[in-house]
Amino acid sequence: MPKLVFVRHGLSEWNALNLFTGWEDVDLSEKGIEEAKEAGKKIKEANIQFDVAFTSVLKRAIKTCHYVLEGSDQIWVPEHKSWRLNERHYGALQGLNKQETADKYGADQVQLWRRSYDTLPPLLEATDPKSAVNDRRYSHLDKRVIPGGENLKVTLERAIPYWDDHIAPALIDGQTVLVAAHGNSLRALAKHIEKISDDDIMALEIPTGQPLVYELNDDLSVVKKYYL
Amino acid sequence: MPKLVFVRHGLSEWNALNLFTGWEDVDLSEKGIEEAKEAGKKIKEANIQFDVAFTSVLKRAIKTCHYVLEGSDQIWVPEHKSWRLNERHYGALQGLNKQETADKYGADQVQLWRRSYDTLPPLLEATDPKSAVNDRRYSHLDKRVIPGGENLKVTLERAIPYWDDHIAPALIDGQTVLVAAHGNSLRALAKHIEKISDDDIMALEIPTGQPLVYELNDDLSVVKKYYL
Repeated sequence: MPKLVFVRHGLSEWNALNLFTGWEDVDLSEKGIEEAKEAGKKIKEANIQFDVAFTSVLKRAIKTCHYVLEGSDQIWVPEHKSWRLNERHYGALQGLNKQETADKYGADQVQLWRRSYDTLPPLLEATDPKSAVNDRRYSHLDKRVIPGGENLKVTLERAIPYWDDHIAPALIDGQTVLVAAHGNSLRALAKHIEKISDDDIMALEIPTGQPLVYELNDDLSVVKKYYL
Repeated sequence: MPKLVFVRHGLSEWNALNLFTGWEDVDLSEKGIEEAKEAGKKIKEANIQFDVAFTSVLKRAIKTCHYVLEGSDQIWVPEHKSWRLNERHYGALQGLNKQETADKYGADQVQLWRRSYDTLPPLLEATDPKSAVNDRRYSHLDKRVIPGGENLKVTLERAIPYWDDHIAPALIDGQTVLVAAHGNSLRALAKHIEKISDDDIMALEIPTGQPLVYELNDDLSVVKKYYL
């Protein structure tokens, strides 16, 4: 039976500072490292043996992936990284303090940016030095593909092709799969897997560092869902 | 111009105990971690930007790869792991103390096992519980491919197909490539790249944790070779 495990990365250095992060490549905090190691221990205790691991190109997810694999004594498992599993791009809000942003734009507007399924944040222009178009890790991409800001809808639309082409085929092959990623990329995959409506999805909060296990049928419908 | 960087993993927990290691999946020691981090710093200082990284399925090399990439701020670089880059398999000597082995078999015999190009060590039978045939990471392989013991010649013969199919094509494509691996798998690749004779190769000792850079022509002949 195909088994899929999500691990959402733990506290980053910017979470601790209450900044919008998105595609900014911020490191895990000490607490975030502890959360990832703890997730690895739980996976070891549950004797989950992965065949393959998927993660984003952001270090907080990659390092979480490594700690989880190392902590469950399977760091040798093949690992694939893709920008399609990145956190939602937070546009021009990236690097801003959440409280200051609320003071400036109003709490309602910020709440809308954070909790609406299809409202885009203010966009980061491609000409901005902070734009991802200047980052070597995206240099193989058509620049028009690189977002200047995303809502969950757009995040889902760019994550699902990766699910369809890489993650789902591994599961259909009967493999046990780890996805170590971010609050919103995992939320997008969960919406797709669990067929959650646009209205209900924003209420789904996957806790950090707690492995979420899906046991699936061969058609990838959910048999069982539980946290370790 | 294609650029190839070798990093040999540093001190493992068994190096420190003077044991034959081979395919035993022994962790880096604290010293080995420091060596890997130091290698990452040197690569960052030299501003070497990798396109792809290759390593073995043994954690001391994988973790070295991760520390090197993280230390040079490019942990997002695609990484591929293969048993073909593993350390030489040391057969039934794995786990034995080098001094005790010398006392038992004689220093000359041990010297021959360690320094001859084509003398095989005593083999580990496939029926031995310690055999790699019982290890999940090799379960996708035809059991006849899994060695019970190797000399450098055999190590080279199983490493070169990986070079030919994965590493060389990346270099021919003009990429900058990291290989984080082991004393003997790197020695095998160096023999191939530098066209070193069977007689001379055992004298080549790649130091641990010191990035070895090859600048190559398009036909992969060596233009320049230096340590960082």
